[in-house]
Amino acid sequence: MFIPQKIFGILGYPLGHSLSPLLHNFGFQTLNYPGAYFRFEKQKAELNAFMQSLRQLPISGLSVTIPHKEAVIPFLDKITPEAKQAGAVNTIYWEDTQLCGDNTDIIGFSLPLEKMIIKHTDKSESYDSKLLLKDYSSLILGAGGAARAAIIGLKKMGCNDIQITARRKEQAEELATEFNIKTIAWEKRAELPTNILVNSTPLGLKGERESLSPLPDFTINPIKENKLNNLFIAYDLIYSPAETVFLKTAKAQNRLTLNGLPMFIEQGLAQFKRWTGHDLDYNQVLNIIKKAL
Amino acid sequence: MFIPQKIFGILGYPLGHSLSPLLHNFGFQTLNYPGAYFRFEKQKAELNAFMQSLRQLPISGLSVTIPHKEAVIPFLDKITPEAKQAGAVNTIYWEDTQLCGDNTDIIGFSLPLEKMIIKHTDKSESYDSKLLLKDYSSLILGAGGAARAAIIGLKKMGCNDIQITARRKEQAEELATEFNIKTIAWEKRAELPTNILVNSTPLGLKGERESLSPLPDFTINPIKENKLNNLFIAYDLIYSPAETVFLKTAKAQNRLTLNGLPMFIEQGLAQFKRWTGHDLDYNQVLNIIKKAL
Repeated sequence: MFIPQKIFGILGYPLGHSLSPLLHNFGFQTLNYPGAYFRFEKQKAELNAFMQSLRQLPISGLSVTIPHKEAVIPFLDKITPEAKQAGAVNTIYWEDTQLCGDNTDIIGFSLPLEKMIIKHTDKSESYDSKLLLKDYSSLILGAGGAARAAIIGLKKMGCNDIQITARRKEQAEELATEFNIKTIAWEKRAELPTNILVNSTPLGLKGERESLSPLPDFTINPIKENKLNNLFIAYDLIYSPAETVFLKTAKAQNRLTLNGLPMFIEQGLAQFKRWTGHDLDYNQVLNIIKKAL
Repeated sequence: MFIPQKIFGILGYPLGHSLSPLLHNFGFQTLNYPGAYFRFEKQKAELNAFMQSLRQLPISGLSVTIPHKEAVIPFLDKITPEAKQAGAVNTIYWEDTQLCGDNTDIIGFSLPLEKMIIKHTDKSESYDSKLLLKDYSSLILGAGGAARAAIIGLKKMGCNDIQITARRKEQAEELATEFNIKTIAWEKRAELPTNILVNSTPLGLKGERESLSPLPDFTINPIKENKLNNLFIAYDLIYSPAETVFLKTAKAQNRLTLNGLPMFIEQGLAQFKRWTGHDLDYNQVLNIIKKAL
């Protein structure tokens, strides 16, 4: 008999077919940890009352998603340096009687990239992850919340040459100023040679935008000739579909591709660890999630 | 994988080793119903904030126990006639957007008694349960919350001769006035001939009071000579221990005995039905609960 004692959940609106309940309930039940994870679909106007209730019950932990990642911060007693830097919280947890906020999207973004680079370059396992991207350039498409995690993640990996571009120019410029990176015009995005091309826009997402790409005129050109042997990774933060038009095009050119599923899983595993102190097996979780996609 | 979607729980203070989480989580998991049941241990001063949170999340259903059964009523939109009559709510549920209160302690009290009488008298299964106790007399020991459920339960079964007695005379008299029943003095409780003797006091409860009995000078005498063939049932609302001193004495005199476990289970099954629309198998639940006792 499974007797849950602690309430967890995801706060956002809309939640759609969020996979977080699957990931965390799998974790709790696999470890026989007495937690249960629910969906809390709350609009902006409901946030204040919900955050009071959270302390009341109390709820032991929350994943936070759109549109509340910034808005929850004033309700917390403390946030981690990562959350502060990102200006966004995706994980709420308790430290004794203090309600705290963390951001695991950053580690979620960078861990899969790190693994891929280790695998496909001459870097050994004993590399310094803070220097891993020091000779690489990157270009981020889109300037929303996911772009922030990508910028911070790339910086943490030592990337000194980060460019950002967005259809809404002002948004890209704001982020560029905040994080001291460069912008290029949306129209010129196909012309820039780069090593790591990140799609943080919703273009290509399952549904109405599935046939779209953030880079329809994607050619083999955007590879910088540098000492890194033409490493080129197309990193799409979307995980549904598993292969967007963007990734299909990159793959057709024999380029390395990474979709958003490893990021989703890593940010979830980091939340789970934060709440329970326990690690979950990445591949077990991946299998469970893939079956549900 | 079990993915819970609805939060249920028990509200009370202290909750001790409440068996309700076991009963309801067993039910949810057996039926693969997406509910999970938690403990909400809240003191009186915390009730107001908790009842707000309940609507916020929302919590799909609550069991309510001491000391909140009366105090929750002002927070509800509607209560059932049973809850109104008892002046107490042990079950909170939603009807569309209305938060409602019910009292399943009454059916919990009367169902086991009904079954026992059917079994041990010449009543057929086609009896009218509203007339089942019309020729019987009853005496209730104690005048707290459980006594209220007992009075209403006995009345619903047609009992016209109900007496009540308590160490605190005023409490017994208050209930007697409210429900139009009779009182006798606590000192004379052993002298009254009766058919159904109910212990609603905590005397005999596991722990400090385990060696006590509400009727230490229990003799074979309190049986009324009537057309019901000396039917005598000693009904103890306590279920831990399974056999109190009170029930041991009655059994030693070859009298029928009933402890509080069937009442606990029946009130729980009625809650479960109210929340989910589903019936659970009484004996399956009994086995699970017995293992935990």
